[in-house]
Amino acid sequence: MVSNTEHFNVVVVGAGPAGMTAAIYAARSGMKTVILEAGSVGGQVAESPEIENYLGFESVNGMDLASTFRKHTERYVEIKEGEEIEQIIPEREIIRLKTGWSEYTADAAIIATGAHHRKLGCNGEEEFSGRGISYCATCDGFFFKGKKVVMIGGGNTAVGDALYLKNVGVDVTIIHRRDVFRAEAAHVKRLEESGIPKIMNSEVREIYGEKVVKGVKVLNKATGDVSDVPVDGVFIAVGVVPNTDFLKESGIKLDDIGYIVTDREQRTSLPRIYAAGDVTGGLQQIIVGCGEGAVAATTAYEDISNPYWKK
Amino acid sequence: MVSNTEHFNVVVVGAGPAGMTAAIYAARSGMKTVILEAGSVGGQVAESPEIENYLGFESVNGMDLASTFRKHTERYVEIKEGEEIEQIIPEREIIRLKTGWSEYTADAAIIATGAHHRKLGCNGEEEFSGRGISYCATCDGFFFKGKKVVMIGGGNTAVGDALYLKNVGVDVTIIHRRDVFRAEAAHVKRLEESGIPKIMNSEVREIYGEKVVKGVKVLNKATGDVSDVPVDGVFIAVGVVPNTDFLKESGIKLDDIGYIVTDREQRTSLPRIYAAGDVTGGLQQIIVGCGEGAVAATTAYEDISNPYWKK
Repeated sequence: MVSNTEHFNVVVVGAGPAGMTAAIYAARSGMKTVILEAGSVGGQVAESPEIENYLGFESVNGMDLASTFRKHTERYVEIKEGEEIEQIIPEREIIRLKTGWSEYTADAAIIATGAHHRKLGCNGEEEFSGRGISYCATCDGFFFKGKKVVMIGGGNTAVGDALYLKNVGVDVTIIHRRDVFRAEAAHVKRLEESGIPKIMNSEVREIYGEKVVKGVKVLNKATGDVSDVPVDGVFIAVGVVPNTDFLKESGIKLDDIGYIVTDREQRTSLPRIYAAGDVTGGLQQIIVGCGEGAVAATTAYEDISNPYWKK
Repeated sequence: MVSNTEHFNVVVVGAGPAGMTAAIYAARSGMKTVILEAGSVGGQVAESPEIENYLGFESVNGMDLASTFRKHTERYVEIKEGEEIEQIIPEREIIRLKTGWSEYTADAAIIATGAHHRKLGCNGEEEFSGRGISYCATCDGFFFKGKKVVMIGGGNTAVGDALYLKNVGVDVTIIHRRDVFRAEAAHVKRLEESGIPKIMNSEVREIYGEKVVKGVKVLNKATGDVSDVPVDGVFIAVGVVPNTDFLKESGIKLDDIGYIVTDREQRTSLPRIYAAGDVTGGLQQIIVGCGEGAVAATTAYEDISNPYWKK
């Protein structure tokens, strides 16, 4: 049972970089703003061992960067952790947001719930996460320059990321569980031309190491043989899943994968609802999410001041 | 006479936040990259007295932030200062970039030359710039909460920014040199409803103070009287000019104001040429430019690897 409903000008859903930037911009423009976060602050940033491509921080631990972001944000707005939105209901004059035990209303909502990488599900994946395992070649490729890694996956991201790693100077081998790639023909052609070694029809059954990754055990599905591939790093690209399950009944437009569709001003298909960051797809990078967050908040401010849905 | 031509995978034009982020992303993806900067590093950032809305820096002097950005960037690429591009020539397989005395070729060029605020041109404007004079309400409005300012201008930006300042809790008066606003009717209506005082048909002739702004001298064009308006701050919104003069003969598509038109992946109308930051219009904020820079570099990398213009 909901005891009372608190009203804000802007409710930001998600305390990752996009949500925090949106909240700072919203609050600085004079709007009463709050951030509701289902888990803990920082999103995927907090899970990254090292970040080197957020301008102004040459090299920073993800936890440290997340806590720097948090401190900045809390100068302006409260971040309520453990507040998982279960339902967003667009009403005539407001947006209603429900958690399991509380309820908020807002003039505008900014969705910045991010996305998560699909896990491979093999032994050692949990243990060596952040210690030689990466889900993002753009973020972490540079750390493995001159080192040996495997890229696991067979779609556009896996093939594109393998080529990216080779271009950075990483010694990369691609492992795919089927005998043909799912990636587009042009990608596959470039992979063939690149000379990147392929281990096809094979599944990684274990990632092993001591403190950091030392290698992978690979099952050949045709022969049943298990081979050992010593490596310094493991890149996994078996899918990214936007965190949009809670939106399914809202009527908001999602694309085929489940990303929120927005215009360039970060408006969604529903009035008063905006989205920013990884949950909208595109280039899933901290600095990009932040930029979108600033735009979303500014658009929300302009729309609330001069609502296009009343014109 | 040009002695020799240096080739890069990516030439970034402009060492503001957008250009620096683009260069970091380009270099980290294995592309040989350089930044050419006509003036000095940092763009408008370096001219800002205080910045509070770039996530991760609660409050920082613009010069300091620019030099932090520079240090980060120079880990990856050289920034050549005083290299003003006079001409960009798209050729079949490359982009040719010419300064007065040197020449570069590149597989791709990223334009991040920014924009500049049109100056009012009155006495004291130079002297008190950054000491009570601001050209950006979104950036600096919050610093003037509870204080008295004038907003100078009559277009959408001036009227919108006056409303923004009022919403932040600034005591704002708008001064316009004509007797009607150029801004859209909806904006003007909101201004009327807001109760923000107006001084029409009037020109600011002088901004005066001691160390910081203390007030403005205003000429009433109808009566010829000069009155004194004591204020803590002066906001000037008389136009923003994109730095795109050097592109006029390139054939690149500009909008009516002169901003470079891009798609969401930051591609311009010409193959191999990308643009990011204030030079593309939109929300002219540091964090937004950085996000666009990351996207531009990633798109350039993808296009060079798999050129759409050869398909």
